[in-house]
Amino acid sequence: MEQKPYQIGLIGCGTVGTGVLELLHRRRDVFCGLLGRSIEVAKVVVRDIEKSRHAAYGFAEPDTFTDNVDEVTEDPEIELVVEVAGGVDLPRQWMMSSLSNGKDVVTANKAALAFHGDEIFQAANDNDRCVYYEASVAAAIPIIEILQNGLAANQVTHLSGILNGTCNYVLTRMEEAGLGYDEAVEEAQQKGFAEADPTLDVNGQDAAHKLALLARIITRSHVPLEQVFTEGIEQVTAEDISFSSSLGYRIKLLSIGSRNEDGSWELRVHPALVHKDEVLARVQREVNAVQVKGDAVGSMLVYGNGAGSLPTASSVVADIVRAAKGDKPIMNSANGQAPRIVSIGEVAVRNYIRVTVLDLPGVLGRVTSFLGMKGISIQSMQQPEAKHGQPVPVVFVTHKVKDSVVSSALAELRERTDLLNGPTTRIRIED
Amino acid sequence: MEQKPYQIGLIGCGTVGTGVLELLHRRRDVFCGLLGRSIEVAKVVVRDIEKSRHAAYGFAEPDTFTDNVDEVTEDPEIELVVEVAGGVDLPRQWMMSSLSNGKDVVTANKAALAFHGDEIFQAANDNDRCVYYEASVAAAIPIIEILQNGLAANQVTHLSGILNGTCNYVLTRMEEAGLGYDEAVEEAQQKGFAEADPTLDVNGQDAAHKLALLARIITRSHVPLEQVFTEGIEQVTAEDISFSSSLGYRIKLLSIGSRNEDGSWELRVHPALVHKDEVLARVQREVNAVQVKGDAVGSMLVYGNGAGSLPTASSVVADIVRAAKGDKPIMNSANGQAPRIVSIGEVAVRNYIRVTVLDLPGVLGRVTSFLGMKGISIQSMQQPEAKHGQPVPVVFVTHKVKDSVVSSALAELRERTDLLNGPTTRIRIED
Repeated sequence: MEQKPYQIGLIGCGTVGTGVLELLHRRRDVFCGLLGRSIEVAKVVVRDIEKSRHAAYGFAEPDTFTDNVDEVTEDPEIELVVEVAGGVDLPRQWMMSSLSNGKDVVTANKAALAFHGDEIFQAANDNDRCVYYEASVAAAIPIIEILQNGLAANQVTHLSGILNGTCNYVLTRMEEAGLGYDEAVEEAQQKGFAEADPTLDVNGQDAAHKLALLARIITRSHVPLEQVFTEGIEQVTAEDISFSSSLGYRIKLLSIGSRNEDGSWELRVHPALVHKDEVLARVQREVNAVQVKGDAVGSMLVYGNGAGSLPTASSVVADIVRAAKGDKPIMNSANGQAPRIVSIGEVAVRNYIRVTVLDLPGVLGRVTSFLGMKGISIQSMQQPEAKHGQPVPVVFVTHKVKDSVVSSALAELRERTDLLNGPTTRIRIED
Repeated sequence: MEQKPYQIGLIGCGTVGTGVLELLHRRRDVFCGLLGRSIEVAKVVVRDIEKSRHAAYGFAEPDTFTDNVDEVTEDPEIELVVEVAGGVDLPRQWMMSSLSNGKDVVTANKAALAFHGDEIFQAANDNDRCVYYEASVAAAIPIIEILQNGLAANQVTHLSGILNGTCNYVLTRMEEAGLGYDEAVEEAQQKGFAEADPTLDVNGQDAAHKLALLARIITRSHVPLEQVFTEGIEQVTAEDISFSSSLGYRIKLLSIGSRNEDGSWELRVHPALVHKDEVLARVQREVNAVQVKGDAVGSMLVYGNGAGSLPTASSVVADIVRAAKGDKPIMNSANGQAPRIVSIGEVAVRNYIRVTVLDLPGVLGRVTSFLGMKGISIQSMQQPEAKHGQPVPVVFVTHKVKDSVVSSALAELRERTDLLNGPTTRIRIED
């Protein structure tokens, strides 16, 4: 006897939504064989019902399209709601009402979960439903699954990821083609690797949302977004890229979750110098990667496409299949005691510091002494030859030092117009 | 109200079994919180009950140890049997009787599954039970999960893995320390990366067992072991490593599953030259890695520890948690139509060919002409300076050519004592 189809409602039919319809169509026989019943898209909610959707019409009947989201969240026949519309507050409402109406939820929406995850996961628990969100972090990379299931027997001690493809593309192109920051952003936009307004990508917010979701799993606790230190790549210059390269490093926007021995955590997103020998340094262009250390498995790494219609849809559809099978994601909600999150000022890292000094006798020595007096010990220094009388850039690499020490020293140094002539930059080094 | 513990029986208490006990002990509170009930090791089956097991006693009560496997496979209270004893025929029996007694099975045993998987998975289906085997391939790397679940929406088109840590360690040390094959194997044994009898590792059989298991998932069909072309690393010499390196390649033992456009598959395990720029070439020492291409996700890669007590136990315990949650692995049994497996002779690859020629005028030209006449077109050639009158090694890199053409040409060439003086080696190049 044939079983009733598994009915799902899709909210959103943009790039990802269309990809989801395409993959469900492409693999329908396989899924039917695996699940013993077919997956049927009962409704597709779109903002503008008048808009023609030739791509999507090939995979879903035109009469399944609606602009009324209630037709999905309140339809008792629909077992699963798939939210791929984007936004924050509306998706939160849709997910909440879907859960309270007894439906499971699949979402690709990192922002909605980063802001409202606590409430949404709690609603899932209260209604004995599940929220699946593999596609919300690093698209094709099954990092949620790996952290929730694959590494269930581990205390994760360190996670370090390249989670924003836009930033990685921009930084890669600045190095390999010698582009300036603005040029590289423009190229990324032309190639479809950056939005028309790339702010949320380049300022690190998008990566911070993703880190907050991963941190929820590895700390087993809710992580308020404001506890994730976030710095973007907007200040990285071609000069920094070139200095870093000559020192043997690449600059990457890293999302880092690191557990200290006392059980506290560092959670931070910022540009970082990564030694070229490290695998993460070799992850180039729009590709994403996550390196994880667990107390049982040691170090492991996954890389893959972090964006794009089909890579993202692939993870959404994997979640649909998990939901149809009844696989229960674990650690969805904040069931552990909230760990102490160490503020960035307390974190100790090595630093790359670039200053522009006045080319006058003794100035360089006075800058070095100044840093030394502030407790910043210099590991190496680089100063290219300059034309006499011109301001000259100097790069210091520091030993490990508390972040707040560097921040306050540089704030003071920036005022010293008797020594400096130009901007002072600091980029953390990830060892 | 507290729920009844989830009772499991452990068969085998060697390195992996002890690791499983340790991790279950270490994470007992976490698992209890996640599952709503505790995981309890009701019985541990060992071969020699008299042997003292100080490491294991810390994590399991001494009175749970038994040398009678029936106490596990026939105990109605035990819901899950975890087989980490090794072997082939006995584990098959234990798994079969566990399944027919209504128990789920977790195993790390690639050999038993490669030989008897069809029967075991069928028994699981017939009894509506599950077999979980994440630890059987690439220990800590959750490749089974990724292929079964994460990539469920994809047709996998290519898989290429470094699945044997012993071989990878030996090949790495031959290159980086200039060791001979025997020396490198000996060092691997001293470091615990090779068994006292490393035959099954170095001859490629172990990697073939693992490829057969992965191929079962990506082809959705039973893959008889004898259809996996298997060649080990025993014939790789320090000279080959050094020539390859100067050509820009590293030699790796690769396990390759590749889908042709007509839907047929290549399944082969052999040493291969991998360009140093490829990520797989950079996976060194005992580490394992798998690169997968899917029609939706594009290319992705995972690497991590492929052996060792805790990395392997980590995957075993992850499976125990999946089983306790009731997550159902999919594609366990041969539910697709068996695909055509292309024999190695039909596969077209580039080749590295090393011959040792007599240093006589015109000999090299005659060897080159011979290869050309046989339909093997030479892409590049390398011949170091030799002392006059000495036999001299010459390396050819061929264009892509059907494997059988190379095999039969070399068989013929080996007889030509008028041209050659010494062994003739061929290693495939993976592009």
